[in-house]
Amino acid sequence: MSETAAETPTYSYLGPVGTFTWEALRQVPEAAGATWRSVSNVGEALDDVVSGRSVGAMIAIENSVEGGVSATQDALATVPGLRIVGEYLVPVDFVLVARPGTTLADVRTVSAHPVAYAQCRRFLEAQLPSHGHIPSASNVASAAGLLESTLADAAIAPPNITEHHDLAVLAEHIGDNPHAVTRFVLVSRTLGLPQRTGADKTSIIAELPDDAPGRLLEMLEQFATRGVNMSLIESRPIGDALGRYRFVIDLDGHIHDERVADALLGLRRFSPNVLFLGSYPRADKRPVEFVPQYSDDVFTDARDWLRGILSGEPPLT
Amino acid sequence: MSETAAETPTYSYLGPVGTFTWEALRQVPEAAGATWRSVSNVGEALDDVVSGRSVGAMIAIENSVEGGVSATQDALATVPGLRIVGEYLVPVDFVLVARPGTTLADVRTVSAHPVAYAQCRRFLEAQLPSHGHIPSASNVASAAGLLESTLADAAIAPPNITEHHDLAVLAEHIGDNPHAVTRFVLVSRTLGLPQRTGADKTSIIAELPDDAPGRLLEMLEQFATRGVNMSLIESRPIGDALGRYRFVIDLDGHIHDERVADALLGLRRFSPNVLFLGSYPRADKRPVEFVPQYSDDVFTDARDWLRGILSGEPPLT
Amino acid sequence: MSETAAETPTYSYLGPVGTFTWEALRQVPEAAGATWRSVSNVGEALDDVVSGRSVGAMIAIENSVEGGVSATQDALATVPGLRIVGEYLVPVDFVLVARPGTTLADVRTVSAHPVAYAQCRRFLEAQLPSHGHIPSASNVASAAGLLESTLADAAIAPPNITEHHDLAVLAEHIGDNPHAVTRFVLVSRTLGLPQRTGADKTSIIAELPDDAPGRLLEMLEQFATRGVNMSLIESRPIGDALGRYRFVIDLDGHIHDERVADALLGLRRFSPNVLFLGSYPRADKRPVEFVPQYSDDVFTDARDWLRGILSGEPPLT
Amino acid sequence: MSETAAETPTYSYLGPVGTFTWEALRQVPEAAGATWRSVSNVGEALDDVVSGRSVGAMIAIENSVEGGVSATQDALATVPGLRIVGEYLVPVDFVLVARPGTTLADVRTVSAHPVAYAQCRRFLEAQLPSHGHIPSASNVASAAGLLESTLADAAIAPPNITEHHDLAVLAEHIGDNPHAVTRFVLVSRTLGLPQRTGADKTSIIAELPDDAPGRLLEMLEQFATRGVNMSLIESRPIGDALGRYRFVIDLDGHIHDERVADALLGLRRFSPNVLFLGSYPRADKRPVEFVPQYSDDVFTDARDWLRGILSGEPPLT
Repeated sequence: MSETAAETPTYSYLGPVGTFTWEALRQVPEAAGATWRSVSNVGEALDDVVSGRSVGAMIAIENSVEGGVSATQDALATVPGLRIVGEYLVPVDFVLVARPGTTLADVRTVSAHPVAYAQCRRFLEAQLPSHGHIPSASNVASAAGLLESTLADAAIAPPNITEHHDLAVLAEHIGDNPHAVTRFVLVSRTLGLPQRTGADKTSIIAELPDDAPGRLLEMLEQFATRGVNMSLIESRPIGDALGRYRFVIDLDGHIHDERVADALLGLRRFSPNVLFLGSYPRADKRPVEFVPQYSDDVFTDARDWLRGILSGEPPLT
Repeated sequence: MSETAAETPTYSYLGPVGTFTWEALRQVPEAAGATWRSVSNVGEALDDVVSGRSVGAMIAIENSVEGGVSATQDALATVPGLRIVGEYLVPVDFVLVARPGTTLADVRTVSAHPVAYAQCRRFLEAQLPSHGHIPSASNVASAAGLLESTLADAAIAPPNITEHHDLAVLAEHIGDNPHAVTRFVLVSRTLGLPQRTGADKTSIIAELPDDAPGRLLEMLEQFATRGVNMSLIESRPIGDALGRYRFVIDLDGHIHDERVADALLGLRRFSPNVLFLGSYPRADKRPVEFVPQYSDDVFTDARDWLRGILSGEPPLT
Repeated sequence: MSETAAETPTYSYLGPVGTFTWEALRQVPEAAGATWRSVSNVGEALDDVVSGRSVGAMIAIENSVEGGVSATQDALATVPGLRIVGEYLVPVDFVLVARPGTTLADVRTVSAHPVAYAQCRRFLEAQLPSHGHIPSASNVASAAGLLESTLADAAIAPPNITEHHDLAVLAEHIGDNPHAVTRFVLVSRTLGLPQRTGADKTSIIAELPDDAPGRLLEMLEQFATRGVNMSLIESRPIGDALGRYRFVIDLDGHIHDERVADALLGLRRFSPNVLFLGSYPRADKRPVEFVPQYSDDVFTDARDWLRGILSGEPPLT
Repeated sequence: MSETAAETPTYSYLGPVGTFTWEALRQVPEAAGATWRSVSNVGEALDDVVSGRSVGAMIAIENSVEGGVSATQDALATVPGLRIVGEYLVPVDFVLVARPGTTLADVRTVSAHPVAYAQCRRFLEAQLPSHGHIPSASNVASAAGLLESTLADAAIAPPNITEHHDLAVLAEHIGDNPHAVTRFVLVSRTLGLPQRTGADKTSIIAELPDDAPGRLLEMLEQFATRGVNMSLIESRPIGDALGRYRFVIDLDGHIHDERVADALLGLRRFSPNVLFLGSYPRADKRPVEFVPQYSDDVFTDARDWLRGILSGEPPLT
């Protein structure tokens, strides 16, 4: 490895080249010119970050159709020292590809990652009602495999697949849901916080103190009483027993927003186990809306008022 | 006035000597040896404090049978610069007195303060079914008047009346409710806070931001989400229109308790108008109970945790 | 008593003729032509209703400046078998009257009911700074007394006083607050419910199950989760010990509104002691506003849905 | 098909014989002697029920380590006319099997269903650090395949595999989590409700009315204000856009419990889309605990009280 290479930062992503994760990483300006390291699962990507081998890992966290990516959520809950520093959206669009010369009528077997396969069910049932499915490890491996083996006649892959492989497109936009999108996060080991932009998200993972009825309600009140909106809440099993969950939560706003910081204080007092995953700009750049009652200056004024009382200053009210 | 007298602090109370308010002031160690100034209503007592003529005013704030004393609550809401610094309880006990030589059978008219009169209704109906009532300005004036005029034959007064006036007791414990008690507060202009004792009360007055449904609920959540109990909530008309109220609230705990201070911050952010009336030891010295989740160290830990995140320190969780 | 008189219904009111209560009773169409019975306090008025002597009693329940009328609230809480059937508003307006020939400059002593006296303080301080106050039993007795005794030079009375007594007006509109208004309710023993008008009020009195923190919040949630707004909540001591309260509550809407009925069911399950005081048209005739989510048909639909499930019908959703 | 066969009910399950689903179906007394139909995924199983081909389908709904089974949750949310009628638990325990004569040292490649593979990671890393993974379609197919192909040397399978196939056990209890368990539900088309046992569960799926902050809190209050505990809440994407979720919820209790029925009424009024999936006995037979305030007779009493008021009966309180 040359000295220059040693200084080039590395980013890990679920490869190979052409996957949706790769598309997500293309959206990161800092990753341009960096070393891109293709890995085969979330655990490997996060290990790279923890070990310092990579400065960042791009990982899928939610799909608009399939829901939260459990492996990612569980890894973020258990691997210490990680921070989410950015969010990226990639539309989920599929093509059916084959070795040049193949026609749709020739297709008997389709290679596809199980998730992609499930998302193209309607097309497959209509156009290839009697095909067989050969599972593949990724959306790109499915297509790349066509060139190495004749086990499959066609493959489901992202549209960019033809940039990387000499394959013919048999059908475009074959996904069931034209609005499907996958949400990715860039994870790093940095402890510095991305700047507040006004269009931010804060991710946390928290456990309830016990199983008493109404505990989840109490936890959500920590946000509601500060006017903080949740854009996501998912329960994930803690894993030690059936019925014990942790909650993966996305809040509108940045920890530098007073209302978010105060909600986190309340949450930390309530929950025996809170993990702050990060505050970072939203992918959709949509500014966070909140009622004026929860603006920063209201918090500052209240603190000044309390400080005045505690220090024996004359009341101003 | 001698120089010594000039240096003696003055306390105002609803007089004359012998009233329940006078009994309450007797419970204040600092008032022993001070000048006691008898006034005729709450407004005068508070004026004395505001003007600096008195260092403190003892005023009735609640009766266990009659409820909150509206005049006191409204005065505290509108006279600026006041602080409650202590709470005192006086049992409400009445005797029927008359000029020596009078017997119960001789009594045709009874002089009594309207509130005292209402609290002895059962005795009066049973023993003096056909008497007439002559209203008096105070529980002592009723009795003192017997010596100046023969308009009334008997008077309702506190038991201590015979220490001050040459009157005969015709009947004892004539109040309807043997457990009746009046709660007094000592009000001053000091801005220093009485020390936290662990058995404290905090009094506030707050308005709701608007008339939207559920607003009171939202206000109470400020206390509930910090584990702060209310021992009193009373609504009082703001006075500008029917249906507009302010709320007089007593909280368990001292503003030096983290959970109370945090609840006050939340309240101040929520309410357009919050008045902090004081934190002071409870008259009954009963220690405040709260669940450990809301103890001071939980608040301190949460702040340390947040500070760590904001400053980029490694997470400890 | 003549036969005709025996058939004429009787209404009790705090008299004599000319009081604000009398003004309120004038607003009741059914009372025109009935016998009007003047009584001297709330207890007497309610006794008339309970005993059947009167079909209705008009009683003051709240003043926009002074707040709730404790005696009324406590009587409604403890006298069984009563129902509020109507609500009436009377503006609080005062004049200063005197025997003909008296001028303002002649006035040394003023006769006034203590509450009226308190509401004219600003006028009195400005115009009659050194007057003496002679308390009277009612706003009319104050003025009527001028004709019987010369103890007082002037009296505070309602504007209509000159219709009933030969007195001269020295000053008009002398109340401190030009918007002051008193709210009255008509109480009867009927158990039939006034028809729903869409501009109704429902009055209840309820106790909390125990002193646990957050109990009041829980009670209010019974209303909030059904979209029912409270226009009034007042705490009144139960009277057995300091710190034990019942709550007097006015809700927007009629018990024939599904959301109100359902909230009452929830309240009844929560509270060990609920008293339904009545559903009746609002004095201000302002239609009750509520979000469509809480309209009657939403309740009906939900019940139909549940009934379908319980009876084994195919789900329609 | 013989007449006898025509009368034998059919149950569908994720096969083949020996899977955890098969173990779950063995717990259903009614399934003994019935026809068992092996299917290859949840969709097929539910189709069997909807079409009437099977009277019931056993499907996995949650794993204590992996969490909710998304495919099942989404199918229940979208396939109409289904009801959960029973719940079953199967411990997740794995063995490593091979063709007789193979030793652990011989193993280069392991066939395993991806989920099973993930749950045995620790064993595999310790004992077979350099093995390759060959994904299989089920926990039984992995092992059965050993007898048809030599692609894999060993397979991860349930302990009962040796009852069905001539294979040797190389290692037992190889799962990472000794307490892992999978929860199954039996789904049918019946609309009759299983009897209330006192140890019941009610499953529902509901959407929020809109994206306003605090909406989830409002929904949970429907349960909390009736003392109904949630044992599960999971969000699942509705699928039409990122950020739109439905909630899969398990409640403690049976729809024949008054508090559950009332909570469902509240939920139905709140949510634009509620699906009742069923009330059925809990697998663990643990009686539902609730505070007496929410017992059936409290609901009945409240209804009687309200009915009395509405019908004009004298109040009993």
